[in-house]
Amino acid sequence: MATQLIECVPNYSEGRRQDVIEAIVEPFRRHPGCVLLDYRADKDHNRLVVSLVGQPEPIQDALIESALAAKDKIDLERHQGGHPRIGAVDVIPFIPIRNMDMEGCIEIARSFGRRFHKETGIPVYFYEEAALRPERRGLEVIRKGQFEALKTEISKPERHPDVGAPKIHPSAGATVIGARKFLIAFNVNLGTSDLKVAKEIAKAVRSSSGGLCHVKGIGLALEDRGLTQVSMNIVDYEKNALYRVVELIRMEAKRWGVPLKETEVYGMVPAAALLDSLAYYMQLAGFERKQVIELALLDMQGKDEEK
Amino acid sequence: MATQLIECVPNYSEGRRQDVIEAIVEPFRRHPGCVLLDYRADKDHNRLVVSLVGQPEPIQDALIESALAAKDKIDLERHQGGHPRIGAVDVIPFIPIRNMDMEGCIEIARSFGRRFHKETGIPVYFYEEAALRPERRGLEVIRKGQFEALKTEISKPERHPDVGAPKIHPSAGATVIGARKFLIAFNVNLGTSDLKVAKEIAKAVRSSSGGLCHVKGIGLALEDRGLTQVSMNIVDYEKNALYRVVELIRMEAKRWGVPLKETEVYGMVPAAALLDSLAYYMQLAGFERKQVIELALLDMQGKDEEK
Repeated sequence: MATQLIECVPNYSEGRRQDVIEAIVEPFRRHPGCVLLDYRADKDHNRLVVSLVGQPEPIQDALIESALAAKDKIDLERHQGGHPRIGAVDVIPFIPIRNMDMEGCIEIARSFGRRFHKETGIPVYFYEEAALRPERRGLEVIRKGQFEALKTEISKPERHPDVGAPKIHPSAGATVIGARKFLIAFNVNLGTSDLKVAKEIAKAVRSSSGGLCHVKGIGLALEDRGLTQVSMNIVDYEKNALYRVVELIRMEAKRWGVPLKETEVYGMVPAAALLDSLAYYMQLAGFERKQVIELALLDMQGKDEEK
Repeated sequence: MATQLIECVPNYSEGRRQDVIEAIVEPFRRHPGCVLLDYRADKDHNRLVVSLVGQPEPIQDALIESALAAKDKIDLERHQGGHPRIGAVDVIPFIPIRNMDMEGCIEIARSFGRRFHKETGIPVYFYEEAALRPERRGLEVIRKGQFEALKTEISKPERHPDVGAPKIHPSAGATVIGARKFLIAFNVNLGTSDLKVAKEIAKAVRSSSGGLCHVKGIGLALEDRGLTQVSMNIVDYEKNALYRVVELIRMEAKRWGVPLKETEVYGMVPAAALLDSLAYYMQLAGFERKQVIELALLDMQGKDEEK
């Protein structure tokens, strides 16, 4: 069997104390098969976002050690920050990357959720594709009122956790665990300082106002540069390809006589999303990912490991 | 130090006998650190082309074993085929891929050439970037008249080998070893059966008739499909990017009212060549290869190996 690869992007409620951040991240450096791609602490949000990729088992082992460190050092009663949260370990999504499908990641999320509760004592909610109650697909439903409200409301049946007794962990709160598709943070910068244009284009392209079904987006000013930006999350890049988003925005911008200045991918992106868009622009026929030297090499290394 | 990666594309004068082909390829499966990406035997050419990628040392070790097998089983006196050749092991180019520059590959080619001669007794010529005589940059100069002519002409000073006595190996001939840039085989198919159009466009785009300096190309008919093709080698994809070739051909095709039907990458391509073209079309700003999950993973694995 080919090596299974998943991504995991755990979010922790600590973005300020460097020693705590390092203690949380340390297990991800230590487990072979778990690769720490990136971690970003935001002081205003008081939140840490970690990007991992690797094989399911070592990632889960490292997550448990990391969660125990977070539980030990973070007290939600004393936590303040600009980002909604209900737990010291706030959210853990599992994302299929290679030789793994969504069903596989849902299984991982649910079994990991049970293990997580057993080893930390923290109650667990399942969200997105791993949700056990349909209304819990949305993170905002689970996090409503944040830690402060959940402390008391957790005893109500509609807010009972999916794993564990209906009782908040006094310092570490609760944790949301799930499975979702890979999310691409994608921005298109417009050659105008007129924020109205960026907002109108965001409305045309995003699902909430009738645009592409898997695009979320807002219009922002980039004041230092005299530009504006359509800032987006592409939540299903297979259904809403990057090239389609770019060309739709280009088309809309023509109405305003505004040039498309540049685009930006923020953070990670899977090779497939890029190859798909390149194939569109270059009209590439019959191209396979194994023709890319680096991807062939990665696939071969995966096989070697299993010998 | 980060893991050095090279490509190597040895060519052998055997495209028909399956047992010989397997004996030649077998060492490339056996050396850890040498990855056999692909091998293609052509019966008409009576030639085998192998694609390897990996670290310089194991690739060189495997090449020696493979050359000894080829020397043992191929007799140039009895070899016939449509492709020019002077040796059982005809050509061995080393190509820099990652954490390696052209200077490094030239050093590898020259030291490997000396080892190759020592272990096989076959005389060696250096070509392209590794050439010791300027006129030997071109393979066609070294291979002039093929094995049959070189047998006697090798004694002339202008045809003396770069390593070894001026005497052909009676059955294995001589071998050309060198360093070159990565070559992309790239085709653009045109929505016309008029071969004249493909030939005119090939002339406009290729260096030999005044087009882009690092593009070689010809016009061909794809008779089964009623199409024609501009069939190219991009010999320096950093200087002549794929998107520039595609858009130049699209522009030329307009003169004939001919649509660009599709493009094809034949064989391997480095990720950098694709990302560069994608960045053009999508106007991607500030994008780094480590943002691609798979490339980040490959880079991290390289580092792990050295711990």
